[in-house]
Formats: sequence, structure tokens, C-alpha cells
Amino acid sequence: MSQLIFRQLFEKESSTYTYLLADNQSREAVIIDPVDETKDRDISIIEELDLDLKYILETHIHADHITSSCPLKNRFKDAKIVLAKGNPVNCADLFLEDGEIINFGNFELKGIKTPGHTNGCMTYSIEDMLFTGDALLIRSCGRCDFQEGSSANLFESLTKLFSFPDATKVFPAHDYSGRTMSTILEEKKYNEMIGGNIDKKTFMDRVDNMQLSLPKKIHIAVPANQSCGVNLY
Amino acid sequence: MSQLIFRQLFEKESSTYTYLLADNQSREAVIIDPVDETKDRDISIIEELDLDLKYILETHIHADHITSSCPLKNRFKDAKIVLAKGNPVNCADLFLEDGEIINFGNFELKGIKTPGHTNGCMTYSIEDMLFTGDALLIRSCGRCDFQEGSSANLFESLTKLFSFPDATKVFPAHDYSGRTMSTILEEKKYNEMIGGNIDKKTFMDRVDNMQLSLPKKIHIAVPANQSCGVNLY
Repeated sequence: MSQLIFRQLFEKESSTYTYLLADNQSREAVIIDPVDETKDRDISIIEELDLDLKYILETHIHADHITSSCPLKNRFKDAKIVLAKGNPVNCADLFLEDGEIINFGNFELKGIKTPGHTNGCMTYSIEDMLFTGDALLIRSCGRCDFQEGSSANLFESLTKLFSFPDATKVFPAHDYSGRTMSTILEEKKYNEMIGGNIDKKTFMDRVDNMQLSLPKKIHIAVPANQSCGVNLY
Repeated sequence: MSQLIFRQLFEKESSTYTYLLADNQSREAVIIDPVDETKDRDISIIEELDLDLKYILETHIHADHITSSCPLKNRFKDAKIVLAKGNPVNCADLFLEDGEIINFGNFELKGIKTPGHTNGCMTYSIEDMLFTGDALLIRSCGRCDFQEGSSANLFESLTKLFSFPDATKVFPAHDYSGRTMSTILEEKKYNEMIGGNIDKKTFMDRVDNMQLSLPKKIHIAVPANQSCGVNLY
């Protein structure tokens, strides 16, 4: 029986998590949110594990770091770059609809639209795991003040994620204090933005008052990511 | 049936991994290599997950960071501080022999002496996982130039770890490039110090010629850790 190879990988500068998933028999693999700074590490791991990279998935167009999706595709020629439908990206091979499934080996991965942080955010679901990008973070959630962000939409997206079973594992795109995962139950109870059954208005007030400075790299990262990092090479 | 709760936690300054393991039914838990800088985060997680901390395990006396074992014990009064027998530590509750087992809930954790990086290093084994401390690192191994280090002993220790099944997961005390785990098979093949069936003399030459500067905190960390961090509080 196929087993899932699972590797969580960390990029220090932007505190981004990249995820590599593969079928241990067919060796077919997907990578979620790869980062330019760590592309050599990720290429080494894919090659050393003898994986056949099928899909390069982005949870959204990132503003804080540049993707390595194009360099990875240059190395693994059959890999397809994937985002949610509606993202203004000129280089993707496949735009997923809400609920659409892609396959690697014996595994299915489903895209779930979770707009709010950006309007094109997608969570990926496989087995008892959710890869939530910047929609649901550990004890927090994504900001909503650029890239068509909307705290109202984010509330609906998080409510959708909270309908998954309590034991579902949450793997976000970032954590800034070294936590690697959470669960839906924990976030329902302890999330500082939406935990404890708060109402939509309270949530929106909290998110709309986050008062964060812009990500340092936003003016470089967003256009670069709209070209899958291709402009750099 | 009991399931294992597993959390890998990262401390950025020293790139140290802390591991929290628990039985999801009895809630009994152990923590491996907790770090002073992240003790508040770890206390929060233990409390939020409603865990009953039984053991605080050190893989060895660290030279690069200060443990939070004493502050954790102050918070969780029944927890016992554990190291391998022979470590010059004045505060541990339990010194494990090679092969000795401790229990939490329905789980067994075995101590395996793996001297070399320090003479008191211990790897902890549970199910298909090894927590290797600084003995076996991902694609590397610990240095052997202080705290009674010995590259000859480390060769024997790594040989012992390589006798575990190929699929055994390796969780080290550190990784400096954001990788979170490896497997015995990968390290047999790709470890840059001992991979590819090299002989003892070649390994010892490589380790003995590492040419590293001393850890910045060694003169503070080693005595503090010999008191389980207690001198700071």
C-alpha cells in the first residue's frame, strides 16, 4: 500500500514553510509554496529521494518572498505550476476551481478556495491535513490589507476550515515562533483572531486594525510571483 | 487505541529542535531538548493541549544554548529531568542506562547511548523515530572537539544507529538549513561525513578536521546546563 512521504521545510528569512509530499511507491510528488532562497536545498531533496515532481502548488501570490516555482519547473520539466483560478499569474499551467482534485500516485489533493488574505488564496487538503497558506495561521490569520484582501471573506473562509474534523492537522505557510503545526480544534479554541466562537464583526475589527507595516519585499515579490519567479532567471 | 501526539518546535537563534510527544488518551507527555528562549511558547502548548508532562529529556549537555528543563520543572512539578548515566549534571532526577525504557501513557521510549559528540550523548527511540541529538545530524554529524568528544566513539554510535531499519525517521537536535527530518536510508546514502559505507579512519579524519570555531555561548551554556538552567532563575 502506498504511504505518504511528507517533508516540512523552513526558510528562515521569511519564516516560510514549504511542503514536499510524495507517494512512496510511484515516487510522484507535489511541492507547496517553494521559496527562491531554498531552491537548491529543495532540488537536492527531490533528487536524493528519487521523486518525480508532478505539481508545484502555490497557496497564493506571496508578498513576502519570491517563489521558486519557475526554477523548479526548469529542473523538473514535467512539473505543472498550479494556483487557484482567478489569480493574475501569467505562468501557471493549471488554475484550480474550488473543490477540484489533482492526483499524485495513489493520493488525492483537493483545492479549497479560502479568499481573504488575498482574493486568490487556496487551501490544499489531503488525508487529515490542511495546507492553509496565509488564511489560517497558528493562533493567528493572514492580514487583509492588500491584494484584494477582505476580512469579511476571510471570516467565511476560516468558518469553512473550522467545519473540518477537530483532529485535522493544520500546516500553515508561516510561523514566526517556531511552531510547525496545529489542529482545527486548537485553532477553534485558542486562535487569537477567530478562536472562541467570536462573531464576524469582532473578527473583522481585529483584522482591520492589525496595523502592520508593508512586507519589505512586496513591490518586488508580487510582480515576480505573478511570473512564477521567472523574471529573475 | 492511544495515538501519539507529536510536535516539532524550532528555536531560531541556535537552530535547535525541541520535540513534544504525548499519549492522546492519558495526556502523559515528554519533551526532548527544550530551550530557554522558547520556554514560554512550550509552556503554552503543553497547557493548551492539556498535557501532563512526565519527563524532560536532554540528549546531552548542550554547548550552544541553555536548556529550559529547570523552568519547565518549576511549572510542571511532577516532571522528572532525565539524561544518560555518566553526565556531570547536578540536577537530573533520573540517569538512564543504555537500553533503559521510560513510559508515558501507552508509549515506550528507549534510551540508546550514542557517545562521540559528547561522552554523555543519548539517542531516544520511539516507534519508527529516533531523536538523535547531535550524534546524527541531517547529512552531517556532531563535532567531537570538546566535552570528552571522540570521533572514534561517534563512528561506533552512528554504526549502531545505521542498524535500525532504513525507513526509521531521524529527528536531530539541529538543522541549519530548514530541513526537519531525514531517514536512516538517506543518511546511509547521503550523509557527508559517514554516508556511502566509508571506513572508520576516513570518518575520523573528516570529523577531526572540521575546523569549527567554539560555540559562542559554550562558557555560559555548559555550566548552566550542568545545573539544568537553574542558575539563571
